[in-house]
Amino acid sequence: MTPTIEYEYQVMFFDTDCAAVVHNLAYLRIIETARTLLADQLGLQMSTMAERGVYPVLLRTEVDYRKPAKLMDKLVVKGRLESVERVRFWCAFEIIRPSDGTVFVTCRQSLALIQMPAARPMRLPDDWATKFAHLRQ
Amino acid sequence: MTPTIEYEYQVMFFDTDCAAVVHNLAYLRIIETARTLLADQLGLQMSTMAERGVYPVLLRTEVDYRKPAKLMDKLVVKGRLESVERVRFWCAFEIIRPSDGTVFVTCRQSLALIQMPAARPMRLPDDWATKFAHLRQ
Amino acid sequence: MTPTIEYEYQVMFFDTDCAAVVHNLAYLRIIETARTLLADQLGLQMSTMAERGVYPVLLRTEVDYRKPAKLMDKLVVKGRLESVERVRFWCAFEIIRPSDGTVFVTCRQSLALIQMPAARPMRLPDDWATKFAHLRQ
Amino acid sequence: MTPTIEYEYQVMFFDTDCAAVVHNLAYLRIIETARTLLADQLGLQMSTMAERGVYPVLLRTEVDYRKPAKLMDKLVVKGRLESVERVRFWCAFEIIRPSDGTVFVTCRQSLALIQMPAARPMRLPDDWATKFAHLRQ
Repeated sequence: MTPTIEYEYQVMFFDTDCAAVVHNLAYLRIIETARTLLADQLGLQMSTMAERGVYPVLLRTEVDYRKPAKLMDKLVVKGRLESVERVRFWCAFEIIRPSDGTVFVTCRQSLALIQMPAARPMRLPDDWATKFAHLRQ
Repeated sequence: MTPTIEYEYQVMFFDTDCAAVVHNLAYLRIIETARTLLADQLGLQMSTMAERGVYPVLLRTEVDYRKPAKLMDKLVVKGRLESVERVRFWCAFEIIRPSDGTVFVTCRQSLALIQMPAARPMRLPDDWATKFAHLRQ
Repeated sequence: MTPTIEYEYQVMFFDTDCAAVVHNLAYLRIIETARTLLADQLGLQMSTMAERGVYPVLLRTEVDYRKPAKLMDKLVVKGRLESVERVRFWCAFEIIRPSDGTVFVTCRQSLALIQMPAARPMRLPDDWATKFAHLRQ
Repeated sequence: MTPTIEYEYQVMFFDTDCAAVVHNLAYLRIIETARTLLADQLGLQMSTMAERGVYPVLLRTEVDYRKPAKLMDKLVVKGRLESVERVRFWCAFEIIRPSDGTVFVTCRQSLALIQMPAARPMRLPDDWATKFAHLRQ
């Protein structure tokens, strides 16, 4: 089964800029909350990992800004595990407005698990090979 | 001639997270400052454009996180105009630490000029075709 | 009746800094979301006000940082209308962890309604004098 | 002598919101950079302190928003050590536009030195009693 997440978010003042639309950085902060909830489903509970000094770290973000969202828009971030490699995995996100189906942002991000403070990348958990066999690359 | 920029930045507390490294969103905020200075060189002065309701908007960001920077690191963002199309142009950035040459982040971003509030994309200024002929795609 | 709000929030990576605790700016961003929900109850719907060019603006913030919250802590912001003057009103907030009653932050903020772009302060709505008579100063 | 700092800052897009003015949180982020530079003068070098697990932490912020700054405004933060107690010290800041003397924001912040991860407050360095005798409370 493919882990997926839906996260609802309403646009606040601090998300907007003086072009009267949501600022590009704000979308990525909103996606990060969705990614954290998705990581929970992947067995990567942040609080546990922080205690062990293991952190999922971003390797790459690709983000397309398609339409501008506005103050108080009610958005949903849809996220899913997209593919799994040996050390790296990819998540895909889109930010939509359910009321009319507008797609504001699409985004792919690759991550790895890093042991801190050495910043050494680790192999992904062994059971991912079977659980996410359909997502292996 | 290719417009380029160098922007110095020292890492602050608010740039870091509890993994003791610079947070992924902070690098993009730092790059945005560099991009604004680069836009100035391109004749896209922000204050003028805001008055006319014309804004350079981000269409896409591709960013690779290569090494983790830390509190009080003295960074430099190097930016340049990478390529020019009819409506869209690309900028390329890297964030380095000059003291030892470490490359922390590399990033490409495409932008267009948008007329607000209609959010209508505009053709790039006519003189770009000649000024940046060597960057045409 | 005194307008009150409760807003739940879980601490994300981007809320923390390299001292491994929530950064002081993050608490104020979280409070701003609670304040927006409280404003809704006061009849100050942000989307309506933005259309009319009327914005509730912050005049003053007083915030005490009492205990440090950590990654993934489940927090609640409790907010209420504290007092009402002719042009200005005060809101009070505290950020707690319901699981053990820890109080992390207490905060008071005064606001006024401003007509933009002139940035002219307006009298508070006439019906506040009766609705919030018990909060008049 | 009273430690003071001046820090220049130009308003970026990410500092503004859809009321077309600088967002209240942005001023405090800008002040934090000034405060870090001021701390340097106080002998509280952030990188050293982070290594020793000692951090200057904010106890309280009082901030008054007086005038709204705008995109690309060239601001200066003026900061100074205001007063010194046994465990706590106060800094004062104002954000002005030198071109016309406008004062946008005034702010006072109290801080203490905290030993992490125990979060135990420490006495201020012994030599402060003599160096800042004129600021003792």
